[in-house]
Amino acid sequence: MRLFSTPQLNPASETGWRRRWFDIIHRRDTRPSRNFDLLLVYAIVASVLVVMFDSVQHIHAAWASWFYVVEWGFTLLFTAEYVLRLLVVRRPLRYALSIWGVIDLLAILPTYISLLLPGAQSLLVVRALRILRVFRILKLTRYIEESGILMQALWRSRRKILLFLSMVITIAIIAGSLMYVIEGPSHGFSSIPASMYWAVVTMATVGFGDIVPQTTLGRFVTSVLILIGYSIIAVPTGIYTAELANGMRRAEAWRRRDDRGCIVCGHEGHEQEARYCNRCGHELPEPLEP
Amino acid sequence: MRLFSTPQLNPASETGWRRRWFDIIHRRDTRPSRNFDLLLVYAIVASVLVVMFDSVQHIHAAWASWFYVVEWGFTLLFTAEYVLRLLVVRRPLRYALSIWGVIDLLAILPTYISLLLPGAQSLLVVRALRILRVFRILKLTRYIEESGILMQALWRSRRKILLFLSMVITIAIIAGSLMYVIEGPSHGFSSIPASMYWAVVTMATVGFGDIVPQTTLGRFVTSVLILIGYSIIAVPTGIYTAELANGMRRAEAWRRRDDRGCIVCGHEGHEQEARYCNRCGHELPEPLEP
Amino acid sequence: MRLFSTPQLNPASETGWRRRWFDIIHRRDTRPSRNFDLLLVYAIVASVLVVMFDSVQHIHAAWASWFYVVEWGFTLLFTAEYVLRLLVVRRPLRYALSIWGVIDLLAILPTYISLLLPGAQSLLVVRALRILRVFRILKLTRYIEESGILMQALWRSRRKILLFLSMVITIAIIAGSLMYVIEGPSHGFSSIPASMYWAVVTMATVGFGDIVPQTTLGRFVTSVLILIGYSIIAVPTGIYTAELANGMRRAEAWRRRDDRGCIVCGHEGHEQEARYCNRCGHELPEPLEP
Amino acid sequence: MRLFSTPQLNPASETGWRRRWFDIIHRRDTRPSRNFDLLLVYAIVASVLVVMFDSVQHIHAAWASWFYVVEWGFTLLFTAEYVLRLLVVRRPLRYALSIWGVIDLLAILPTYISLLLPGAQSLLVVRALRILRVFRILKLTRYIEESGILMQALWRSRRKILLFLSMVITIAIIAGSLMYVIEGPSHGFSSIPASMYWAVVTMATVGFGDIVPQTTLGRFVTSVLILIGYSIIAVPTGIYTAELANGMRRAEAWRRRDDRGCIVCGHEGHEQEARYCNRCGHELPEPLEP
Repeated sequence: MRLFSTPQLNPASETGWRRRWFDIIHRRDTRPSRNFDLLLVYAIVASVLVVMFDSVQHIHAAWASWFYVVEWGFTLLFTAEYVLRLLVVRRPLRYALSIWGVIDLLAILPTYISLLLPGAQSLLVVRALRILRVFRILKLTRYIEESGILMQALWRSRRKILLFLSMVITIAIIAGSLMYVIEGPSHGFSSIPASMYWAVVTMATVGFGDIVPQTTLGRFVTSVLILIGYSIIAVPTGIYTAELANGMRRAEAWRRRDDRGCIVCGHEGHEQEARYCNRCGHELPEPLEP
Repeated sequence: MRLFSTPQLNPASETGWRRRWFDIIHRRDTRPSRNFDLLLVYAIVASVLVVMFDSVQHIHAAWASWFYVVEWGFTLLFTAEYVLRLLVVRRPLRYALSIWGVIDLLAILPTYISLLLPGAQSLLVVRALRILRVFRILKLTRYIEESGILMQALWRSRRKILLFLSMVITIAIIAGSLMYVIEGPSHGFSSIPASMYWAVVTMATVGFGDIVPQTTLGRFVTSVLILIGYSIIAVPTGIYTAELANGMRRAEAWRRRDDRGCIVCGHEGHEQEARYCNRCGHELPEPLEP
Repeated sequence: MRLFSTPQLNPASETGWRRRWFDIIHRRDTRPSRNFDLLLVYAIVASVLVVMFDSVQHIHAAWASWFYVVEWGFTLLFTAEYVLRLLVVRRPLRYALSIWGVIDLLAILPTYISLLLPGAQSLLVVRALRILRVFRILKLTRYIEESGILMQALWRSRRKILLFLSMVITIAIIAGSLMYVIEGPSHGFSSIPASMYWAVVTMATVGFGDIVPQTTLGRFVTSVLILIGYSIIAVPTGIYTAELANGMRRAEAWRRRDDRGCIVCGHEGHEQEARYCNRCGHELPEPLEP
Repeated sequence: MRLFSTPQLNPASETGWRRRWFDIIHRRDTRPSRNFDLLLVYAIVASVLVVMFDSVQHIHAAWASWFYVVEWGFTLLFTAEYVLRLLVVRRPLRYALSIWGVIDLLAILPTYISLLLPGAQSLLVVRALRILRVFRILKLTRYIEESGILMQALWRSRRKILLFLSMVITIAIIAGSLMYVIEGPSHGFSSIPASMYWAVVTMATVGFGDIVPQTTLGRFVTSVLILIGYSIIAVPTGIYTAELANGMRRAEAWRRRDDRGCIVCGHEGHEQEARYCNRCGHELPEPLEP
């Protein structure tokens, strides 16, 4: 829930260059900070594109050495950024172990490792995850609020969705082994795990067609499995829609009645001066009529 | 939102043939105007059918020269219509740059271009877009109101759907590169972009089957990706359903309470004489009990 | 809406065998009437099964002459039933032209036609439609009420669903012709109609895989088409769910408040003695506290 | 609905080892009882994994004799558990005929049968069903409550879903035989049952691609069938979502107003001392403010 929380300043850096860089990295409302963020986002998108195009054979054949240089350029840039982040925050270890810290590290490691092990370069695509930083720069506080509602609805339906997933897996085990017995390895159902993969692909209405039933009984069982999967598709949709409708009603009620309930967890009755929800830490919006 | 707005008359044409043609083209309640619209719609549908059938090889072989003549007939007709529209509206440039103006131009350009470049004829299918004009003729004000509710629900959920799309693309990048590493070019995952195409096809439960995982690990990752995609399918449905239910409740409340709220944007408290919403410009219905 | 309406008695048959058979055919609460209905349902299901199994080659090889006899047995039985229905109802022509009358006729015609034209026998499967008669026998008034709510929700969302269908067809035309230009006949997109078939199969997430894009641009366009189709899947679900929730709320409100509103069209304020809704003709339930 | 009901103690075993084992098996709050449950769950998951891996050819080749021994170990363990359960409960027959009793028996039978009939071993996967016991151990009373709401929503929508299923089957019969007539055995539609299998696969948007239409008419009928299936997919989702939203609203109302309504069937007005709903037998929660 605190994906976008603001780290605290390193106390040793209340003044001087650390202070300046902390502001550039973590604030969003100044000119240099926006430029820094923009540069970073462009670099992330560009580096992901380079990895993607490098995987296309005929492009690789023509540009391999060029991509190699660019790749090292991005890696050095991201390394500098990573070190800078470590230097300016109050608790470097906490950043290093946070989700973003790990992703930032994973984004630079593969290139260094590829000096020893060729092939590790493919892992560079972890950088794609950094694209989420894009949302930060666009000052999309609205987007993040929306994300809060969507995530909270997902969080509230977690138990029901877990129950649903265990149901799907159980059905996949049963149907997979049934089909393994009915169709057998000669028709592509080569083992129970392979049949389970087929059952998931079928139940979720993907239906690749690489493995298909060929006996009459197998086709009948498949039809039944599909109709079950077809009914089950309603379950997560129903759960999520009901939860989301609840969340949106609450958000709208909040906007109208100005009762200062938290838009994410719904807790109400905050003090007049409160800026964050005392339950979930989400920022409370300004009172409408102060 | 203003897809069906009425253009204003060219001031130079308050009287005479321009006035008459402006009425024929833009009004909907007179006999000649209805005939004009009907003729136009028949011509559009017929021209689209000609392009479609012309693409079927054995029909083309038999009727090619005939289709060529018909094609030029439609093009000249649509050119005349386009010039007429330019002549009678008050601001020709504004029409030329509007969505409909561009489509009307694109509908006639390919035939002329095909005099220089053979093959451009395929682009004639842009004419299909003009089929949307059909709704106008049937005087389906009810349909357009429905369309307003559907569109407004889409518009209100735009941020959430954008967030969802960026989530889908991020997952496609991660899953695509994972599968590229796991399965490799020998199993059809020839590059990261190709793997991303596969990931989108799989996550959306389309599952063509032209590229399929063949290793056990690849099948396991695929199953996980499918279950994620299966859960994600609930997100846009949930978002849209919740927004639509809101919009419909509002529309029904309006119909019952006669509080003259705008059926599209929900703004209330309009003056007794008002005929259009002062927020979004959508037509307000007549008060039920005047 | 009046799928299960009760025909009126032929006035010439107020007494005698016609009266008796009218009661047997159209009432549901007497012993002979239930037996007649049961016999009919068994005959329908059995005759459909015979046609189905007769189409399986190795079964046909072994049982062909046997099936031929059975087939004629069913046809004579259904012919007798059809003639009987014509004789006992007040307005034979009206029955003959009703949905059920036409289905009943279509169910017997193919066998007679097959005397002249071999092959017409395949059309016998129209008999499957008669299976809907099953609901009648089980005295499933509850089921029919449910059906009323489901159908009414479908009816109320007809305009929105029509709009949605015309949107789908327009997108199919545009995407189909785009792909025809991009991929061309050599990759299976042999004509614009064939490409439109592919576009519908893809957008609806069926994805047979008989026609697949093979160029990079084609795959990109396909991904975009899929994401659009994926968003569009929310539209009919959202429309229908919202309408159905409305209908169910109304039905529940009716059950609780005993305000005698029609369960199907929602019209309220019926007279105390009223047994049918004076708007849509659906049967009103008994008042809860008389 | 009583999937997790507590069996009663065998009166002959109020004291002694039977009493002790009854507590271990059926209570959940003591240390030995938790250990027993954990052991059982681990054994179930392990035995299912063994059956699954044993079906993979190259694993079977290397470990067959080892798996044989492990298999017999699990079977003896489960046999001991089954006999123990029979001994300690008050009504052994009732347990033996309950869902869980039958599953427990089916889980051990195949190994014994395989002494006589080789091949029966594949049926061992019935053990997967026992995985549902996992929920018990985690003391997930919350989960079971959720399950109650989900199941009750399914139960309330049973009539509508049955109606929907019979609609799907009828359409499958009609479309299947139409395609059998149009495409014929030479294009893969080898019989009406095979065509029905294809119709179900297509309507549910699975689309394996093992059977595909090849004529223009066949493709047109397929497109129509897909659009119908696409509209129909909204039906069960809509039904279930509406029912679930009802159930959740009721559950929330209960939590807030403390009106002691049953969270599952909604019956209200229970006595102050009541611990179970007198309608459906589901446990009532503690009053919030006693």
